[in-house]
Amino acid sequence: METVAASSWKQLLLNALESNSSVKHSLFFQLATIGSNGKPSNRTVGFQENSDNPYQHRQPKSKGSSFFTLYLFWVVDLYWIDELKQCPFAEICWYFADSWEQFRINGSVDIIDGSCRDPMKLQQRERAWFSSSPKSRLQYLGPIPGLPLLGEIAFKEPSLDPSTGPVDAFCLLVLDPDQVDYLNLKSNERLNFTSRQNINGEKLWTSQRINP
Amino acid sequence: METVAASSWKQLLLNALESNSSVKHSLFFQLATIGSNGKPSNRTVGFQENSDNPYQHRQPKSKGSSFFTLYLFWVVDLYWIDELKQCPFAEICWYFADSWEQFRINGSVDIIDGSCRDPMKLQQRERAWFSSSPKSRLQYLGPIPGLPLLGEIAFKEPSLDPSTGPVDAFCLLVLDPDQVDYLNLKSNERLNFTSRQNINGEKLWTSQRINP
Repeated sequence: METVAASSWKQLLLNALESNSSVKHSLFFQLATIGSNGKPSNRTVGFQENSDNPYQHRQPKSKGSSFFTLYLFWVVDLYWIDELKQCPFAEICWYFADSWEQFRINGSVDIIDGSCRDPMKLQQRERAWFSSSPKSRLQYLGPIPGLPLLGEIAFKEPSLDPSTGPVDAFCLLVLDPDQVDYLNLKSNERLNFTSRQNINGEKLWTSQRINP
Repeated sequence: METVAASSWKQLLLNALESNSSVKHSLFFQLATIGSNGKPSNRTVGFQENSDNPYQHRQPKSKGSSFFTLYLFWVVDLYWIDELKQCPFAEICWYFADSWEQFRINGSVDIIDGSCRDPMKLQQRERAWFSSSPKSRLQYLGPIPGLPLLGEIAFKEPSLDPSTGPVDAFCLLVLDPDQVDYLNLKSNERLNFTSRQNINGEKLWTSQRINP
């Protein structure tokens, strides 16, 4: 086992995004959670391309630091939020079909909604809201996803002032990775990155080569 | 709610495969299960193109019949088989980036290995083995996936007679769908297909339009 910086698996991920940038599909991954019935649940999540956006990935605090958090946000399905509150664990599976690379990133999800008491997190939520396009913000005003469609009753096309802050239905979900399983089917290599917290609460990562 | 044939969601899936046939990525989906630690687990699974192969999808017994089973098989990770034995529930998430369609297919997984007592299932396993290429069969002879790599000890390149039947490590996994959630982001439509068994043990499917 080798002690490594979190940036090593992050770099692999950034390289994969770079080398698969022409493939539309590479901007989507699947996120598995556990449903309230105790069964697995799996959804597609879109990754936004703008790498300058701090909500998708934040640079390590300092060179060599083990700190790394992957930020994600997406349309909220209220059932799903309830499920995540009951069981916050999740695993991303991100496959790059062009470079034959797979990342499995597991960790726990923090739900930041309007009722959150942490001013820093609320600010993150607000920034995430304003970094999304005014058009995509309208999704949070539509009928609740997953409920039966109400017959022929036309749903009034929502409108929203671009300066209006996050609406109640907008949640920011933040995944904090604990473990990353990287598989490269071209080179037939597999690496397992595992984290543990040191006494300062910082994450330390180790990596190990395992059988593919 | 409307009573429908299983073939209706199957047809949507076949149409999606057809309209996305030029996209390499459309032949991969992600399968979520629950790990032995109780946390979600997510893996990429490749779908084989040959639609005449009965192991990928079998036609309904007769027109209007509700019977439908999706057959899948892939490289076996022994840890995973143990996990599936503890919790056989799984959810496929299959996203077609070109046509903006997502299928979430959940059900339970039947594990057919060499110790199975059912001659029909053993025959299915054997057919699945011989329908895979001789080269891909060699994967089942490699070192156990997920275990630490044994330093510099070179692993002897395996060889196998093409007429040799399934090796011990080869398992056929069969997913029997219970529920299908279909989302079309272009038409902004979402359909939920749910099954229940009738007194003859046949699956009856109903569909309902839900909010996307």
